Amino acid sequence: MKTLCVDLGKHSYPIYIGENLLRQSQLVTKHTPSQQLLIVTNETIAPLYLDTVLSTLSHYHCKTVILPDGEQYKNIDTLNLIYDALLENRFERQCTLIALGGGVVGDMTGFAAASYQRGVNFIQMPTTLLAQVDSSVGGKTGVNHPLGKNMIGAFHQPRCVIADTTTLNTLNERELSAGIAEVIKYGVIRDAEFFKWLSNNIPELLTRNPQCLSYAIDRACQNKAEVVAADEREAGERALLNFGHTFGHAIEAGMGYGAWLHGEAVATGMVLAADLSRRHQWIDDQQFQQIKTLIKRANLPIQAPTSLSIKRFLELMSVDKKVKQGKINLVLLKSLGKAIISDDYDPQLLYQSLQQSIEHT
Amino acid sequence: MKTLCVDLGKHSYPIYIGENLLRQSQLVTKHTPSQQLLIVTNETIAPLYLDTVLSTLSHYHCKTVILPDGEQYKNIDTLNLIYDALLENRFERQCTLIALGGGVVGDMTGFAAASYQRGVNFIQMPTTLLAQVDSSVGGKTGVNHPLGKNMIGAFHQPRCVIADTTTLNTLNERELSAGIAEVIKYGVIRDAEFFKWLSNNIPELLTRNPQCLSYAIDRACQNKAEVVAADEREAGERALLNFGHTFGHAIEAGMGYGAWLHGEAVATGMVLAADLSRRHQWIDDQQFQQIKTLIKRANLPIQAPTSLSIKRFLELMSVDKKVKQGKINLVLLKSLGKAIISDDYDPQLLYQSLQQSIEHT
Repeated sequence: MKTLCVDLGKHSYPIYIGENLLRQSQLVTKHTPSQQLLIVTNETIAPLYLDTVLSTLSHYHCKTVILPDGEQYKNIDTLNLIYDALLENRFERQCTLIALGGGVVGDMTGFAAASYQRGVNFIQMPTTLLAQVDSSVGGKTGVNHPLGKNMIGAFHQPRCVIADTTTLNTLNERELSAGIAEVIKYGVIRDAEFFKWLSNNIPELLTRNPQCLSYAIDRACQNKAEVVAADEREAGERALLNFGHTFGHAIEAGMGYGAWLHGEAVATGMVLAADLSRRHQWIDDQQFQQIKTLIKRANLPIQAPTSLSIKRFLELMSVDKKVKQGKINLVLLKSLGKAIISDDYDPQLLYQSLQQSIEHT
Repeated sequence: MKTLCVDLGKHSYPIYIGENLLRQSQLVTKHTPSQQLLIVTNETIAPLYLDTVLSTLSHYHCKTVILPDGEQYKNIDTLNLIYDALLENRFERQCTLIALGGGVVGDMTGFAAASYQRGVNFIQMPTTLLAQVDSSVGGKTGVNHPLGKNMIGAFHQPRCVIADTTTLNTLNERELSAGIAEVIKYGVIRDAEFFKWLSNNIPELLTRNPQCLSYAIDRACQNKAEVVAADEREAGERALLNFGHTFGHAIEAGMGYGAWLHGEAVATGMVLAADLSRRHQWIDDQQFQQIKTLIKRANLPIQAPTSLSIKRFLELMSVDKKVKQGKINLVLLKSLGKAIISDDYDPQLLYQSLQQSIEHT
C-alpha cells in the first residue's frame, strides 16, 4: 500500500492506494469519531462490493443507502435520499458518511456530508479509475442543476481516500477509458514526463496491467494533491485542472446527463482546447497531434457530437463556473505540459475549433 | 449609525445598525465584487421594502426572487427557487445575494449563497427584530427537513449585516415579541446586567421606543458577535446560544413549522430549561421567577402546547443537533447570567418539567 498526503493544514488527509484495501478496517477506524456510519453506494456497485465493506466494518453501527446509477441522477432529488436516511436513522454530528462508488456517488455523498447538520465527516472509497485519480481527491462536492453541471455544492474535504485498485477489475472498458482521460489530463497540463510515460504505456493501461495502473494512479494523485494543496478553493492554479472541462460540460449538458460519460466529454474537450491553443500557435501541430493521438489510442472520442449546433454549444459553455464578467475563461496550453487560464483568445478561432470538431471536416 | 465587528480573521465583517440604512447604497457597494445582485425576499416584505432597496441599488444589475412567507416554506423546494433564478440569469461566481427579510429568508439565502457554485458572497438585510439580533449574525444558514429543523445547511459568513431599525415599525406585535425572546436569551445566558436592564425597560421595547430598541439590538449583537468570534463552528461556547432551542425546536416541529413562531417556541423552551435548572437547584426559585416573569411580560408563551404528549416531545428533542452518543445535551443555567451545556441532568426531572409545562399544573 502506498500513502500520499493532501497537505491542507488542519484539513490534511491521506490517500491510501493499493490492492484489497476495502478489506482493511483499520484504514476506516483511524478516521471515524463515532460508531455511526452511513455507506452510500449505487445499484451497480452494491452487488459487487457492499457486502465486503459491510463485513470489514461489522463492528460499526452501519446503515446503507443505494442510489440509482448514473450522472442523470446527480441531482437534489437523489441527494434527498441520503438526507432521509441520515434523519430516519437519527445520525448525529459525529457520524461518518462513506462514499463507495464512482465520481457521482462521491460528489453527492460529499455534499450530503458538507450540508448535513452544517457538516459531518466523510470518507471516499472510489471504485472507478476516474474517481481514484480525480474526483475523490480535493474536496469538491456537489450536484447538477438542469441548467448547469455541479452548480450546487461545497468544498468539503474527506477524512481519507481509500483507493482499492482491485475494484478496477470490474470496471467496464468504457469507464476505464473515461478514467484514463483524466489521467492523460495531468500529463498534458503539468507533467510532460508523465505524458511521455503514458504514450509508451497506454496499451498496458487498457489491459489493466496492475503495476502500470498503480503507477498511473499514484502519479495522477500526486499531481492532484500538489495542485489542491497550493489552491484549495480554486482561486488560481487549481482552475487548470478544468482543462477540457468547459467544453466537456457543454457536451454533457447538451446531450443530456449520462449520455456521454464525464471522462469522454472531457476527452473531446481536451482535443478542442488543444486545437484552440494550436490555432493561436501556442502549441505546434506536432504537439497537438501527440495529444489527440494519445486520447484516441485510449479509445476516447475526439470529436464533438454532430447533434449540437455551434450556437447551442457556446451557450452551454457560457453557464460554466469559469465565466467572469460575461467572458468565458478557458484553460489553454502554452506548451505540452504547461496550461494557463485565459480569456485572451480569439472568439473566431474558438468558433472554428467547434466548427471543425462538430462538422468532422 | 453604529458599526460593530464580528471578528473572524479573514472572514470578519461589520454589522451596521441604524435608521434608514436601506437607503444607503455605499454600505452595499463596499462589499460587492461585481454588478450582479440577487435580492431574495418574501411576499410580506417585498411590498414594504423591495422598491426602496431596488432604488438604492439602481446602478446594479439586480434580479429579484420573492419567496412565500413562513417557516413552513423553509425547505429544499423553496431553496430551489433561488437556484433557478441564479442559473436562469446566469449569475457568476463573483455575484452577491442579498437577504431582505427575517430569519427564514436569511437562512435560506445564506445557504443558497454557501452552495451556489460552491460558495458566493451574500449580505444580510434583516427586517425583523429576531433576525437583527440573532439569525443574521454568525453565518449559520440552512433549511429544515420534515424530520428536523435546520438539519441541512452550512456555516457561511455574510460580507456585512445591514440592520435598518426603521423596518421594525412595520413588524406586527407577535413578531416583535418573538424577537424580544432572543434578546432576553442573551441576558439570561451571559449578561446579567443586560437582563436587569431588560426587566426595567420591557414596556419601552414593546412600545418600540427607538432609543431602547436600538440599545437592545446593539447589546444583543455585541453578545452574539463575541460568542461567534470565540467559536465560529460551534465547537464549544457557541452552543450556549441554543438555550431554550432544543425544547423550542421540538415544539416547532411537533406543532408543524409556522404554527408557533421560532421566538415563541424558544421563549417556552427557555422557561423549560430554567425550570429544569431550578429542579436541580442550580438556580433558585427567585431567579426562575424573574426569568419566567420577564418572558411573560414580553407577551410570550411560557407553557408547552397541551397537544404534544411528553413521549412525543422527548422524541422530537432527540433529533436535535445537540445529541451526542444518543444523549441529549441541554443548555442549562448555573445562575442567572451563566449557562452551561450538560448531559449531566436527571431524566426524571426533565420529565417533571415537561409534565408540569404541558399539563399546566
